[in-house]
Amino acid sequence: MINLVLLGSGNVATHLYKAFSASKEIQVKQVYNHSAESLGFFENKTPVTTSLSGLVEADIYLLALKDDVIPEIAKQLQNVKGLVAHTSGAVSLEAISECKRAGVFYPLQTFSKNKEVNYKEIPFCLEAKDSKDLELLKSLAGEISGKAYEISSEQRKKLHLSAVFVCNFVNHLYSIGEQICKDNDIPFEILQPLIKETAEKISTSSPVEVQTGPAIRNDRSTINAHLKLLTSEENKEIYQLLTKAIQLFHGKKL
Amino acid sequence: MINLVLLGSGNVATHLYKAFSASKEIQVKQVYNHSAESLGFFENKTPVTTSLSGLVEADIYLLALKDDVIPEIAKQLQNVKGLVAHTSGAVSLEAISECKRAGVFYPLQTFSKNKEVNYKEIPFCLEAKDSKDLELLKSLAGEISGKAYEISSEQRKKLHLSAVFVCNFVNHLYSIGEQICKDNDIPFEILQPLIKETAEKISTSSPVEVQTGPAIRNDRSTINAHLKLLTSEENKEIYQLLTKAIQLFHGKKL
Repeated sequence: MINLVLLGSGNVATHLYKAFSASKEIQVKQVYNHSAESLGFFENKTPVTTSLSGLVEADIYLLALKDDVIPEIAKQLQNVKGLVAHTSGAVSLEAISECKRAGVFYPLQTFSKNKEVNYKEIPFCLEAKDSKDLELLKSLAGEISGKAYEISSEQRKKLHLSAVFVCNFVNHLYSIGEQICKDNDIPFEILQPLIKETAEKISTSSPVEVQTGPAIRNDRSTINAHLKLLTSEENKEIYQLLTKAIQLFHGKKL
Repeated sequence: MINLVLLGSGNVATHLYKAFSASKEIQVKQVYNHSAESLGFFENKTPVTTSLSGLVEADIYLLALKDDVIPEIAKQLQNVKGLVAHTSGAVSLEAISECKRAGVFYPLQTFSKNKEVNYKEIPFCLEAKDSKDLELLKSLAGEISGKAYEISSEQRKKLHLSAVFVCNFVNHLYSIGEQICKDNDIPFEILQPLIKETAEKISTSSPVEVQTGPAIRNDRSTINAHLKLLTSEENKEIYQLLTKAIQLFHGKKL
C-alpha cells in the first residue's frame, strides 16, 4: 500500500486522483490546495486541507501544481519524511532539491477537464535523487499505467518541447483546418478519419518515411493555388514556412 | 453490378482496386496505365492495357492519375459512353468537362504503399455534372464506405487545402518531435499516446476548445526556455510563428 498526499486541484490533480482511487494499492490520505473553493471536487471523497502545516504523514507528497509555485511549495516541505515529487514536464528535479527526498512523476498526456483518459495508455516519466525512491515511483506508476520510463531532467525538458510540437501546435493546425471548413460550409467531420490515420500511421512508421503532400512532391502549381486560396495572412505564413521546412528537411530543391 | 475501368497504378489506384475487389457489386473489368511495368500488381488479377484505344466498355472510367495528366487523359475519353470520374482533391470537375458524363470520386485519406486502410472509415467526396451520375457515384462509394458527401469543386479545393494543414503539416510536426527525441536518446514511442489522444479529442470537441500549452497560457518563461533549447533555425521559426498564431487566434495579448 502506498499512502500519498496530493497537492493541487487542477486537471492533472483531478485525473490522477481518479486513477489513484481506482487502485487498491494506493491510498490518497489528503488533498491540499491553498484555496478552499478549488477543493470542492475532493471534499466528500477524502480529507482536504488549505494549510501546509496541516499535512499528514505519507509515503509520497505529489505536487500537481503550476510550474512556478512548485519550488516554493517544495521548500516548505523540506522536512517531511516522505518523498516529494512533482508532475511537471518543464520543472527540473534540481528545482525541488531542498527536499531530502525528491522525485518527478510526469504523466505525458494532455488533460481536459471533461474528458476521461485511459491511464493504462499514459507514459509516466520518472526521476528521483535516490534509486529506492525511483523504485517507489515505478510502483506508483505501475499501479495505474503499464508504461513508465526513467527520464532525466534534461531529457524531460526536450520531451516537453517535443510535446508542444506534436500536441499543442498540431491542435492549432486542426483549428485552422476546422476554420477553413466552416468558412466553406464543409462539415469538419470529413477530415477526422484523415486526422486519425495520420496520427496512427506513425505508431508503425517513422513520420519522416510517410510524409506526403504538395511540399514533399515540390508540386509548385498546387502550392501556389493553395496560397491564393488562403485569406488569412497568418495561415499563408504558416503554409509557406511549413512547406519550406518540409522541403529543407527532406533535402528537396527549393 | 457496377462495371469499371481503373486508370492509374499508384497508391490510390492500388488501394481502390483492393476495396473494389472485396465487393460483389463491383467488377473491375480492366486496369490501364501508360507504362506496362507499373501494371505488375494487377496483371494476374485482372485484364490490363497500356493503350487508351484498347479500353473496354464500362459504367465508370475512374481516373486515379496524377493531377496534371487528368485533363489530357479525360480529353481522350470524351467519346466513351460511361461516366468519367477522377479521384483528385485538387482538380475541378470543369477540368474534365469535355467528357459527356463527368464526375469526381475523391477519397479523403492519406494512402501509403504498404499500409492497409479501413475503407469503411474513408469519406468519399462526390460530384457530377448530372444528378443520375451522382447517384451512380454514391452507389459506388456505398459499396466500399459508409461515408459519402456531395462536395462542389470549390469546396473540394478548400478541403484539400485543409487536409494539407491537418495531415501533411501535422506529419511534419511529428517529424520534428521525433527528431528532438532522437537527438536526446528518448524513445519516440513515449509521445505516441499523446499524439493519438490529441487526434481523438477533436472527434468530440472542437480543436479551438481544447487548445492547451504555453502559447495559449501566454507562459513566457516556458516559451523562452523552449526557444533556447531549439538548435535548428527552422524549428525556432516554426515555434515562434505557431505560438504567435495561437495567441492571435485565441485573442491573447502578445
